Amino acid sequence: MITKSLEKKLGERTFRPENPPVILGSASAVGKKEGEGPLGADFDIRNDDSFFGEDTWEKAESQIQSLALGRAVEKAELSLSDMDFVFAGDLLNQCAGSTFGLRDANIPFFGVYGACSTMSETLCFGAMAIDGGFAERVACITSSHYCSAERQFRMPLEYGGQRTPTSQWTVTGAGAVILGRGGAKNANGLPKITHFTSAKIIDAGIKDANNMGAAMAPAAYDTLSAHFRDTGRSPDYYDLILTGDLGRLGHDILVDFFAKDSIKLNNYNDCGLMIYDVEGQDVHAGGSGCGCSATVLCGHILRKMNTGELRRVLFAATGAMMSTTSSQQGESIPSICYAVAIEV
Amino acid sequence: MITKSLEKKLGERTFRPENPPVILGSASAVGKKEGEGPLGADFDIRNDDSFFGEDTWEKAESQIQSLALGRAVEKAELSLSDMDFVFAGDLLNQCAGSTFGLRDANIPFFGVYGACSTMSETLCFGAMAIDGGFAERVACITSSHYCSAERQFRMPLEYGGQRTPTSQWTVTGAGAVILGRGGAKNANGLPKITHFTSAKIIDAGIKDANNMGAAMAPAAYDTLSAHFRDTGRSPDYYDLILTGDLGRLGHDILVDFFAKDSIKLNNYNDCGLMIYDVEGQDVHAGGSGCGCSATVLCGHILRKMNTGELRRVLFAATGAMMSTTSSQQGESIPSICYAVAIEV
Repeated sequence: MITKSLEKKLGERTFRPENPPVILGSASAVGKKEGEGPLGADFDIRNDDSFFGEDTWEKAESQIQSLALGRAVEKAELSLSDMDFVFAGDLLNQCAGSTFGLRDANIPFFGVYGACSTMSETLCFGAMAIDGGFAERVACITSSHYCSAERQFRMPLEYGGQRTPTSQWTVTGAGAVILGRGGAKNANGLPKITHFTSAKIIDAGIKDANNMGAAMAPAAYDTLSAHFRDTGRSPDYYDLILTGDLGRLGHDILVDFFAKDSIKLNNYNDCGLMIYDVEGQDVHAGGSGCGCSATVLCGHILRKMNTGELRRVLFAATGAMMSTTSSQQGESIPSICYAVAIEV
Repeated sequence: MITKSLEKKLGERTFRPENPPVILGSASAVGKKEGEGPLGADFDIRNDDSFFGEDTWEKAESQIQSLALGRAVEKAELSLSDMDFVFAGDLLNQCAGSTFGLRDANIPFFGVYGACSTMSETLCFGAMAIDGGFAERVACITSSHYCSAERQFRMPLEYGGQRTPTSQWTVTGAGAVILGRGGAKNANGLPKITHFTSAKIIDAGIKDANNMGAAMAPAAYDTLSAHFRDTGRSPDYYDLILTGDLGRLGHDILVDFFAKDSIKLNNYNDCGLMIYDVEGQDVHAGGSGCGCSATVLCGHILRKMNTGELRRVLFAATGAMMSTTSSQQGESIPSICYAVAIEV
């Protein structure tokens, strides 16, 4: 009966919602180090207490998700009960940051796992749910916490381990985006999701879990290339192309990859290089974690889009999908990248 | 501009795709114990080697996802490259079973986390992507493995720990469903997803990680009640109402909950009670794990739907969203349940 082709699909992997979902509001909550960084003033909630009033770092991470969601809903002049769904995930085992953080929100919940690509993955889901006619308003949210991540993925903090030069600093922070249907009240002039490009799992054989930038750069290259190919847009179409947390090394690898295709990424930056003063704050290769791209998007970028300073942004958060077990078993690091075009 | 209401939404949390996505194929792969159980003959792939030819249990789990996907695509008379997306998740930390299992499939990938509810969660995503106009065909897949789950969540197998009477046995198995658009070739007479009901996080305060049936039953009750309320259907409408892995205790709690509402669940069963001979195979309260509901659905139920023996099934996989860390920190177990109505 239904024989119409997928008119929302462009090329191989890019999708163009019929009625681009609108970003009705967004908010970010961060810790001390992020608040002291170059974007500090842009974050909605800053707390110098790494426990955020809780008694464990994991509960603190849940708390910042809850804070970011509450503030985002408030900024959108909505309430939690207006949300049809929340799409959420994080780095903690079994995505516990999200489940416990959103347990009391009473919003139909979809758990998602895309490692540090989670912010853009949830935006893809949100766009599909809204443009597909299943939701009027959804929340997309993710978080990370330096202390819970170090404990889980690396060393107990108390051990005081040395970090390698290619290692990155997991951002303590959460970002939440409230998406609504194209025709929503006061939607004029607000940023919209006009396209998204899905992710393939790319594994370039990198095995060093302290060099995630190198592991993730090939995934970013794969997805961004697909996006440009599918849409026919050149990188210069965008005021800003933004990867999630490639850090210094991954950033340079990505630039090199495109240089081999004779493509110059003029307006390109990486959230991991923006959120900290990379030299001054001693974060080695830059920031990382789900909260890195989430807080930079929700705190800094969307603020600039709302004032008109940025009009076309390609947000491509990246994820390294290893676990401590897979690394201990000698596996390489499969990586992933979802790209979301946000335009005013 | 867009002011039409959500005509796909029924009541509070249930959705009715405009063109019900069709189950074009499905397959299951299981281990020795499952092959010896009462449904053994229904599974597509059985292997007595708990390593499935790999050198670790985690790699074995990835391998069974890959096997189930390959067979499901084959049964649907399609190839991997026909899939627009794969939605996948599992219980391993960072969902490594899925990432590594699907790394070579070269299908655009969305990682999902719903603990043991993952099979029904991925079907919700698949239905939204297809009916929303974003995909023609998708794969939905999940897995679990007794040995990888025991090692990660409980004790090293070598320790030989005693299991409590309320504990359940994690299924070694994977299930994969291939969904296609309503108008797909040869779709007549195939099972379709006619409705799905989204999940809220329900936490009844249970803290015993060896009693997940009790933790999850309230979530099943919440979602099934919403489904009946939203659709106006009584439980008797369905030939079979199927929860994921409540086990003996959770099954009885759910029946009790509905009895308090003066509702009798006549055609109700739980995958965790079906997959094993609960007494004879010494599995205590029954089977569990993402693979439990996935293999019972893909191996047993859909087979019966394809022969017309079952025509209306409400598939409600349940998930317990704790982590070892949250349990060690004294937290209770938030639970979740997505219900999917499958009808011929």
